[in-house]
Amino acid sequence: MYSETKYYTFANPPDLFQLESGRQLSSVTLAYETYGILNRAGDNAILILHGFTADAHAAGVHRETGRVGWWDDMIGPGKAFDTDKYFVVCSNVLGGCSGSTGPSSMNPETGSPYGSTFPVVTIGDMVNGQYLLLRSLGVESLASVSGASMGGQQALQWMAAYPDFVRSAVPIACSARLSALGLALMEVSRQAILNDPDWLDGAYYGKAFPVKGLSLARMAAHLTYVSSEFLDLEFGRKPWTDDKYRYKLGGEFDVQKYLRDEGQTFCSRFDPNSFLYLSQAIEYFDFGKETGSLASAFKRCKSQVLLISFRTDWLFPVAHLRELQVALHEAGKNASHITVETTNGHDAFLTDWKKISLLISEFLES
Amino acid sequence: MYSETKYYTFANPPDLFQLESGRQLSSVTLAYETYGILNRAGDNAILILHGFTADAHAAGVHRETGRVGWWDDMIGPGKAFDTDKYFVVCSNVLGGCSGSTGPSSMNPETGSPYGSTFPVVTIGDMVNGQYLLLRSLGVESLASVSGASMGGQQALQWMAAYPDFVRSAVPIACSARLSALGLALMEVSRQAILNDPDWLDGAYYGKAFPVKGLSLARMAAHLTYVSSEFLDLEFGRKPWTDDKYRYKLGGEFDVQKYLRDEGQTFCSRFDPNSFLYLSQAIEYFDFGKETGSLASAFKRCKSQVLLISFRTDWLFPVAHLRELQVALHEAGKNASHITVETTNGHDAFLTDWKKISLLISEFLES
Repeated sequence: MYSETKYYTFANPPDLFQLESGRQLSSVTLAYETYGILNRAGDNAILILHGFTADAHAAGVHRETGRVGWWDDMIGPGKAFDTDKYFVVCSNVLGGCSGSTGPSSMNPETGSPYGSTFPVVTIGDMVNGQYLLLRSLGVESLASVSGASMGGQQALQWMAAYPDFVRSAVPIACSARLSALGLALMEVSRQAILNDPDWLDGAYYGKAFPVKGLSLARMAAHLTYVSSEFLDLEFGRKPWTDDKYRYKLGGEFDVQKYLRDEGQTFCSRFDPNSFLYLSQAIEYFDFGKETGSLASAFKRCKSQVLLISFRTDWLFPVAHLRELQVALHEAGKNASHITVETTNGHDAFLTDWKKISLLISEFLES
Repeated sequence: MYSETKYYTFANPPDLFQLESGRQLSSVTLAYETYGILNRAGDNAILILHGFTADAHAAGVHRETGRVGWWDDMIGPGKAFDTDKYFVVCSNVLGGCSGSTGPSSMNPETGSPYGSTFPVVTIGDMVNGQYLLLRSLGVESLASVSGASMGGQQALQWMAAYPDFVRSAVPIACSARLSALGLALMEVSRQAILNDPDWLDGAYYGKAFPVKGLSLARMAAHLTYVSSEFLDLEFGRKPWTDDKYRYKLGGEFDVQKYLRDEGQTFCSRFDPNSFLYLSQAIEYFDFGKETGSLASAFKRCKSQVLLISFRTDWLFPVAHLRELQVALHEAGKNASHITVETTNGHDAFLTDWKKISLLISEFLES
């Protein structure tokens, strides 16, 4: 299956895209991909929501880059999100750096990239943008929304913000709000970027790229995506450098080399300012805060819900998804919660796709 | 109880202090404090081993600084380490920066600070230095050795390296070796320092201090000393900045401010090069690696052992201390292991001193 990234620029009715902060954006483009065919009724669509640093290219082999989509194992003919039945859409979020409007985009008013002058975006803003995109594609309602991590936060937001538009939801490895540890870890990543002298208060476009800062930010963040068990199994204490390096300052272990490589590679595909903006969106997402309780936030939802957690996820632990299920039940809603047995931690939403596929196929059929 | 830091410089027999790496140091000074009185037999001594970033000032009110020792709750007349009965010694480790020889010390051969030319030190080197210090004080054998974290690693090393010298040991919140996650987290801290342009390959003495790098290194490290539960209870998601900052890039939460303050404060008391050297010592400590198994490493030990772990410690989890107990039993040794119920994580060895005191008093009496 080949795929292609398309771009939708909001024109009208909202010439100005209204953000939750009260600020507006005069021009918003969302990069998106679609797989499968929308039916006449416009009601066989499924929206896939990506995590922090992914993009619109969720499935297929990209026509230009040859890259395989990040959830290709899950989306396609006969797969969990079955493109023989469903019209599957995935869009790069507002604030991102993979084709959608974000801090690295040109500010039409100044002719220069926004940088730190880009307005703060929220999970709600992302979802509102996606709604306009779906409407432009002729989607009348969603058979399902699903995503993990920041994608799971968006799924919750979808359920609450557009209750009549969403028939089912599969939030994965997410929570109503980030824990204090999650906030603290985000701070380590943020400071890594701000510390980089090349960051220049966000005005580094066209100048030196803040490689060191972004690499380190990713290193700290990446640790939260894997589990201690995974790292022990995969790397343990194997030395990377020759053993004589144990007596030389800077001797290093496989797992340390792996982490540094992960940071380096990340720099070729992500923008430091988008890292800061999307971090902030994740940090400030606090589902149920406005309505006073989680249960009340779910009150208006009409979706069937399947929650999926991973035993070894320490960023969004099992208890966080159990809390969501309890609140859904309190609100009188149907919700299952399944914890997948895995050593892969948070990233199990990518690695353990076989187990997840079974759960989702069964859920969508019922 | 007033206390005073003293300094011991190795003179003779070892004019050159031999390191495990094969390198030698021509002059080694250890800063230390003592509390209580050594008996005639020289056998009522207890050695207290400090963690990564602490110092020799374990108890009492320091005569010069007025500061209270880091384990003052545990050491003194009638306390767990009872100075009415015992002669208690604590020394700043080799490689440290609180009075003992380390990378910030003057290299007598060049007249400049060692910086990155300081030889790599190991937990074994630290213990060998402490042995010479104790002998110089007239200590014939130790009634006990105890310490948490890196101090616990030293306690294990003491049991194996000087089996006839150590009658009992209380290793707390430590393990035979750091996990892959531990190594990975250390790498984040290390890169934070190396990324700082002021680090200058370790030759920053007399120039700008690498504040940003060391602060960030400490922030990442500090997170491993506290638990997710602790952070939720203590800070939760309380905003530090005004709530309007949720819509301003850089809005921050209490827990994030706390972490940044922790990093800043740390800079007034610690040396970035010592951070790198002591990290490396902790990383490469691998108890039982040379003998082929943990049990064989314990074979020659003659100490009674009490192992203490904390339920919410994620740096040195309960299972790591259980592994030590199992190996001690395999080696035919007496060893108890008690897990303290606490939400305070790794740092419970400081905060939960009442519970620990009871365990240690009972252990030392028996």
